[in-house]
Amino acid sequence: MHSLQFTAESSSDGVTERDFTVDGIPGVLWSPAPGAEPAPLVLLAHGGGNHKKHPSMAGRARLLVAGCGFHAAVIDAPGHGDRPRTAHDEAEIAELFRARAAGEPEGPVVVRYNDHLARLAVPEYQATLDALQQLPEIGAGGPVGFWGINMGTAIGVPFVAAEPRITAAVLGQHWPDALAGKARQITVPIEYDMQWDDEHISREQGLELFDAFASNEKTLHVNAGRHKELPRFEADSAVRFFARHLGRVTAPAVPAAPVG
Amino acid sequence: MHSLQFTAESSSDGVTERDFTVDGIPGVLWSPAPGAEPAPLVLLAHGGGNHKKHPSMAGRARLLVAGCGFHAAVIDAPGHGDRPRTAHDEAEIAELFRARAAGEPEGPVVVRYNDHLARLAVPEYQATLDALQQLPEIGAGGPVGFWGINMGTAIGVPFVAAEPRITAAVLGQHWPDALAGKARQITVPIEYDMQWDDEHISREQGLELFDAFASNEKTLHVNAGRHKELPRFEADSAVRFFARHLGRVTAPAVPAAPVG
Repeated sequence: MHSLQFTAESSSDGVTERDFTVDGIPGVLWSPAPGAEPAPLVLLAHGGGNHKKHPSMAGRARLLVAGCGFHAAVIDAPGHGDRPRTAHDEAEIAELFRARAAGEPEGPVVVRYNDHLARLAVPEYQATLDALQQLPEIGAGGPVGFWGINMGTAIGVPFVAAEPRITAAVLGQHWPDALAGKARQITVPIEYDMQWDDEHISREQGLELFDAFASNEKTLHVNAGRHKELPRFEADSAVRFFARHLGRVTAPAVPAAPVG
Repeated sequence: MHSLQFTAESSSDGVTERDFTVDGIPGVLWSPAPGAEPAPLVLLAHGGGNHKKHPSMAGRARLLVAGCGFHAAVIDAPGHGDRPRTAHDEAEIAELFRARAAGEPEGPVVVRYNDHLARLAVPEYQATLDALQQLPEIGAGGPVGFWGINMGTAIGVPFVAAEPRITAAVLGQHWPDALAGKARQITVPIEYDMQWDDEHISREQGLELFDAFASNEKTLHVNAGRHKELPRFEADSAVRFFARHLGRVTAPAVPAAPVG
């Protein structure tokens, strides 16, 4: 049994935000008003250099909770947010900054360092899921999604490959090198984001990773633009994807009321 | 001035369907209940071998009218629906069936025949737009979208390239051969659909046509599956695309919380 402790709680606009730790790892759980039945959970993973309360995490969580009545949860990745950096973290981050300053490709450093972090993070995500499924408002056996882009995908691909409780995942913007082998073990529905003009990840690399997923149902969303220009409407699309696959569609697929 | 005549009218579920002819070419206009202001128009184009009242046309029109309060209109392509086939049409269709029966690629016949039909259809779509913009409920100067997949894209790419009144387009599932040159002239927002396991159009061909569009804002949606397996949720996505770009969004598909 993992040790789940809640350390803070607040509410706004019908969304309850609870800070927690699982075996000492800090996370956040966003929840709707309690209902009669357990609600689906989407596990989020943040990007490299970010943390569990980055606006992109809180924003996605709010879309899932307020839009679909789902729970959403995220933990800090190793070396990120409120977690300590090791000497290895410091060395890899220094190497990334050095490569960037020298105009060298970031890919080799990011692929290697994210692969290292993912090996640590996968069991942490599994422990988090174990702990959260003990809560009556989530429960065991319900549908669980995973949503992580960039470093969140480096963690998500091995996590989803290893974790049969995940029934749908939104991923994107990573290299195939360390991930394609694990992607070939994944058969749940996938929505994958890539940027057509990504200055770090080539088109061939992005398409190769998408191609590797063994899922019968998989969708690739490619948008014009550079690495950091992933359009905000892809977050809405991800929420609709989870609404379809986690089985509680309360957000209409198209605007419900006549306009004008 | 083009000759617009309405020949039949019916209504159901708040959607009015009016058959019309423009210069003798038969079409259908679907409209919402009349409002105080003109409403945007989306021109549809049907696929090869289909016609203006195919369920996919009526279904898309209903999503646009009931979901967004837009008008939607389509005309029969040359040699399709209620329009006569020429000897050239008969010969090309026979050649397509022969190639299919012989297990030969359909692409060369479809590309050539669709290119021929598009040359005829582009001025017909322009005449239809001229005529429909005379209606007070549509008006001149309002936003106009175009939505056509398969043969609808063979018509749509040269039409959108030639027609500055089109401000956003959903296209997909065609070859670059006859279309990439025109696509390079298109700068309006594009959503483009392709199938990852299309038995007629290779991945390279699909990606080449998407790449050709000069639009700063363009999105590619790739789904696992064969040519005819384009998922129905892509129609919902297209409607949201038009809701965003034709500028009358008052009912977002998900709550408009910050995403970060």
